[in-house]
Amino acid sequence: MTKPKTVAVVSGGMDSVTLAYMLHNEGHDLILISFDYGQRHKKELEFAKLCADRLGVPHHVVDLSGLNALVANSSLTNSDIDVPDGHYAAETMKKTVVANRNSIMMNIAAGMAVTFGARHLATGVHGGDHYIYPDCRPAFIKALDTLLTVANEGFIDTKFTVLAPYLYWTKTDIATVGDMVGVPWEETWSCYKGGDIHCGACGTCFERREAFVEAGIADPTLYNSLPEYVDPR
Amino acid sequence: MTKPKTVAVVSGGMDSVTLAYMLHNEGHDLILISFDYGQRHKKELEFAKLCADRLGVPHHVVDLSGLNALVANSSLTNSDIDVPDGHYAAETMKKTVVANRNSIMMNIAAGMAVTFGARHLATGVHGGDHYIYPDCRPAFIKALDTLLTVANEGFIDTKFTVLAPYLYWTKTDIATVGDMVGVPWEETWSCYKGGDIHCGACGTCFERREAFVEAGIADPTLYNSLPEYVDPR
Repeated sequence: MTKPKTVAVVSGGMDSVTLAYMLHNEGHDLILISFDYGQRHKKELEFAKLCADRLGVPHHVVDLSGLNALVANSSLTNSDIDVPDGHYAAETMKKTVVANRNSIMMNIAAGMAVTFGARHLATGVHGGDHYIYPDCRPAFIKALDTLLTVANEGFIDTKFTVLAPYLYWTKTDIATVGDMVGVPWEETWSCYKGGDIHCGACGTCFERREAFVEAGIADPTLYNSLPEYVDPR
Repeated sequence: MTKPKTVAVVSGGMDSVTLAYMLHNEGHDLILISFDYGQRHKKELEFAKLCADRLGVPHHVVDLSGLNALVANSSLTNSDIDVPDGHYAAETMKKTVVANRNSIMMNIAAGMAVTFGARHLATGVHGGDHYIYPDCRPAFIKALDTLLTVANEGFIDTKFTVLAPYLYWTKTDIATVGDMVGVPWEETWSCYKGGDIHCGACGTCFERREAFVEAGIADPTLYNSLPEYVDPR
């Protein structure tokens, strides 16, 4: 049997690293792709590379720094804007959205997949991403799957497939499966603030802490502080 | 009445320059966007800038040079591969396709549109592009329109609209309208080979020459040679 050849978009966070370990475990011939879009938490890219090295698969970092004009309004790339603390569900977290970001990245990754002869494109988007990010919702994944198939008709021999196995999962579900497939959690990065250790207080840190607690998994992460979660809604 | 705010993707060729002049004429508040993807015919970018200057509208060039790994297989960016001569319809012209290129560019342009507060994204794709480029076909434009709307739900107040007025037109139709709206043809660039003057022999030069002849418009272009067209099929 030929292994399915798959490009996986890996940021270096819990979700995408779990995705890479899981697909590797399932026998996929993987190529990992990360994006440098001038994010403040560029540190995550080192963790994506570490993931590729551990699995012994290729890793490409796509430089999107030319897109700075595009993303200037986002706190993830503009150091004049503070990264808001608190839970993702808060309205203020909309500040962390880069316009059309996921769609841009997925389309570039798909182009690389076509060039590399891969027919599957995998993403670790999960149910918890839906609330704020429209380009992580089921309707988006479906529209993307259609777009990529029609956009590459005649250049690929079969349908192009977007794999999003966590689309209806919680981050807790991901932590549970990640643990089963042996993800070394200390080799994943979540914090949007990009300090030496996880801040413990930003939206992604809250999500990370919550997932480990709810999955009943020991959290090996070093946090700068451990504030209690207060729902800002 | 508020002018519709529109981002137009302009390469500097006949089609996209005509699009910009036409939309400007129709009262759109335009922002022009071009892409530097390491193309051999980078010269076209100067013509896109000239178009923006003539119309007195902003012009942004997005640097996609970080995508070189992605496009390494194409003769448009790899100088080891010859640009094939002859008509676009020839099978060999597939060599000039950059995987998923149009989809990548349209998604980036859409992200910029959202950031700039524009709700329309305009492209000069036309009927003659369909044969070779799947990401210039009606099914692609429709899928893109859907994708961009779902990908930006909640961040835009209305539906996102992709304008592709030439989708069912021939290049001859475009030349006819371009002449009506006063496009200075000598300020447009078509040749894929990127020399000092148009080569006259590559696929885009053939298309250009043919469009002027069929539209009955005097062609002010300087060509290096004027070979007769022989259908290679």
